[in-house]
Amino acid sequence: MAHHVYKLIELTGSSPNSLEEAIETAIARAAKTVRHMRWFEVVSARGQIEDGKVAHWQVTLKVGFTLED
Amino acid sequence: MAHHVYKLIELTGSSPNSLEEAIETAIARAAKTVRHMRWFEVVSARGQIEDGKVAHWQVTLKVGFTLED
Amino acid sequence: MAHHVYKLIELTGSSPNSLEEAIETAIARAAKTVRHMRWFEVVSARGQIEDGKVAHWQVTLKVGFTLED
Amino acid sequence: MAHHVYKLIELTGSSPNSLEEAIETAIARAAKTVRHMRWFEVVSARGQIEDGKVAHWQVTLKVGFTLED
Amino acid sequence: MAHHVYKLIELTGSSPNSLEEAIETAIARAAKTVRHMRWFEVVSARGQIEDGKVAHWQVTLKVGFTLED
Amino acid sequence: MAHHVYKLIELTGSSPNSLEEAIETAIARAAKTVRHMRWFEVVSARGQIEDGKVAHWQVTLKVGFTLED
Amino acid sequence: MAHHVYKLIELTGSSPNSLEEAIETAIARAAKTVRHMRWFEVVSARGQIEDGKVAHWQVTLKVGFTLED
Amino acid sequence: MAHHVYKLIELTGSSPNSLEEAIETAIARAAKTVRHMRWFEVVSARGQIEDGKVAHWQVTLKVGFTLED
Amino acid sequence: MAHHVYKLIELTGSSPNSLEEAIETAIARAAKTVRHMRWFEVVSARGQIEDGKVAHWQVTLKVGFTLED
Amino acid sequence: MAHHVYKLIELTGSSPNSLEEAIETAIARAAKTVRHMRWFEVVSARGQIEDGKVAHWQVTLKVGFTLED
Amino acid sequence: MAHHVYKLIELTGSSPNSLEEAIETAIARAAKTVRHMRWFEVVSARGQIEDGKVAHWQVTLKVGFTLED
Amino acid sequence: MAHHVYKLIELTGSSPNSLEEAIETAIARAAKTVRHMRWFEVVSARGQIEDGKVAHWQVTLKVGFTLED
Repeated sequence: MAHHVYKLIELTGSSPNSLEEAIETAIARAAKTVRHMRWFEVVSARGQIEDGKVAHWQVTLKVGFTLED
Repeated sequence: MAHHVYKLIELTGSSPNSLEEAIETAIARAAKTVRHMRWFEVVSARGQIEDGKVAHWQVTLKVGFTLED
Repeated sequence: MAHHVYKLIELTGSSPNSLEEAIETAIARAAKTVRHMRWFEVVSARGQIEDGKVAHWQVTLKVGFTLED
Repeated sequence: MAHHVYKLIELTGSSPNSLEEAIETAIARAAKTVRHMRWFEVVSARGQIEDGKVAHWQVTLKVGFTLED
Repeated sequence: MAHHVYKLIELTGSSPNSLEEAIETAIARAAKTVRHMRWFEVVSARGQIEDGKVAHWQVTLKVGFTLED
Repeated sequence: MAHHVYKLIELTGSSPNSLEEAIETAIARAAKTVRHMRWFEVVSARGQIEDGKVAHWQVTLKVGFTLED
Repeated sequence: MAHHVYKLIELTGSSPNSLEEAIETAIARAAKTVRHMRWFEVVSARGQIEDGKVAHWQVTLKVGFTLED
Repeated sequence: MAHHVYKLIELTGSSPNSLEEAIETAIARAAKTVRHMRWFEVVSARGQIEDGKVAHWQVTLKVGFTLED
Repeated sequence: MAHHVYKLIELTGSSPNSLEEAIETAIARAAKTVRHMRWFEVVSARGQIEDGKVAHWQVTLKVGFTLED
Repeated sequence: MAHHVYKLIELTGSSPNSLEEAIETAIARAAKTVRHMRWFEVVSARGQIEDGKVAHWQVTLKVGFTLED
Repeated sequence: MAHHVYKLIELTGSSPNSLEEAIETAIARAAKTVRHMRWFEVVSARGQIEDGKVAHWQVTLKVGFTLED
Repeated sequence: MAHHVYKLIELTGSSPNSLEEAIETAIARAAKTVRHMRWFEVVSARGQIEDGKVAHWQVTLKVGFTLED
């Protein structure tokens, strides 16, 4: 790992079901174009309310991936 | 949305089962007296421990709702 | 001022024109039901984008008012 | 405590004598209209200076109380 | 909105005239290459001083846009 | 509770399944050597990504326990 | 710029008209006694309310200036 | 002091009387098992409310002590 | 207050007796050379420990004073 | 500088030798694909420990660069 | 790494020479009694000044280590 | 130390070589006019990039010094 450089990008994922699924949705979408993702960090969590109930969970996260040499 | 004004209130919900249910409990209780709730933001998460296990999950959140004209 | 107690409420105002007007919109709406407002503090500023342009400025603020004895 | 929901309100109390008394003044005033207060958290402390001396201590705090079912 | 994923990018815009114009300048520049921008959040505000006057207002903001499937 | 003193320790738990399980794993491990644990507070949440999917959820938390006299 | 040292001072300016003017008022006052001011950073924004309207905008800022050798 | 290493521990003390006494209670308890304590830093202050009055003041603090060689 | 400009300075006061006295000590010292002090804000609180007891309370505060025209 | 717009990207660089070299490694890698880099800001610093010694220094930084018109 | 639990401890190291050496001094001291240290995070940096020069660099850091099953 | 009062000033120093030297440059400059400096705290670190390399390291710090009676 001595000389690796990582880039961090910030994403917001959403899910009607759970906080975890909101994160997984964001990472799955990023995986279409970003390779070598290594870790994520949760920045904030929120959600939309409709008719007095949680309609969507939304999580903003940073994802770190290795920059190839 | 041009001239809407929203009020934010801060609540703490609890649940014996999960972080999501603690949030849903708080929003369900607020829905008894507050209309037009639109979104929530997680402020902090904590919990009570009994006998070396999590007894209750507690989440503090802000809830935003539209103020009617 | 020696024994006054103040309550702070949190509001989000919006405006199509400026950050100041978003704040003024929130305070004007609150003035319909809250008396003795004394000061406000900006918590955060954001906005909506439509067609590559700012459509609405949104400011979240805390408003402090005197609680009457 | 399993399904309790708490609401948090933000207050600023003042006192000519001490930080503790500024907090007690805010809680005593809130107790006139709010029942079931359970805890408070200090948000910030400040004060007014007159003639080179502290004239009033001011403490902003959040107070949590149980929402009845 | 159920399964949308958003990406957030961070920009600094500047203007000789106002904070709002500094934000609009950044968003107008981003609109040349980024589609589906939805919201922005102000991160910080600063400026350059020349001859004892504000020469340029500078605002750093995060812009969120929808990632197409 | 009048004269109790609590100590807070900081732990990071991990789980392949959920944020809650990562917290429960940390508390279960601490329970082997620490008695009288009373509450926890979430400090941050992150995770490891492998092959474009979340491999492990990691939560850092503070745990408070009563110091016996 | 290699060996320059800057000092930062903190000011609060006010204006009946706008956030920008509150900043300009503070910098204009500082320019009477401070030379070589280079940049400012907004620390916080607030204001006074009178009769349900914003009476004064107040901005606290840090101003950086070059210390002469 | 050139090569000293300090460890910081986090404690919460409580008192029915004052913020200072809550801190002193925590330090007195720690002194039973920790030697060479040098300084403390206040992390947060809160309290319990009973019957509309402050029942206990609670202060969370970090305490630094010298690790002996 | 329309066009007043305030300067904020940061001080640390200490006292063997209480947090309030540490603040009052700092303000009394500043009053020897600074006129028109108007308010203070607590930045942080800490202290020195000797022989397992609090030897000195130390409070860092910002003091705002009016800049004369 | 009147109308420049800057983009900020977040990177983590690592080095077996020093904090400065970790930053320089990140910037050197970015320079392969990013032009007109102007400044960086340190976000956080950490490192890996192996056999009781620092094996790698890691610094996360934001890098700002001019967006060409 | 699936079920590992880590504990974090907070240390302050000092050095007459550099920030890196202050960190290394803290980790070397901890290594006498703590095994399986894995990473550290810098919390804050400061130092002592004597005769107008830096006499000691001081860095506060958190160190994470694996708790053995 | 019982009744000492300290003042804190904020400075930004720069150096082409290292973070430590940027701090030392700021303190050396301050020593020309400020006596009895006792400690410093790092507020933030950044730098200028030229031709894809770090041209200058810049550190903002607070310096505390004793106010003479």
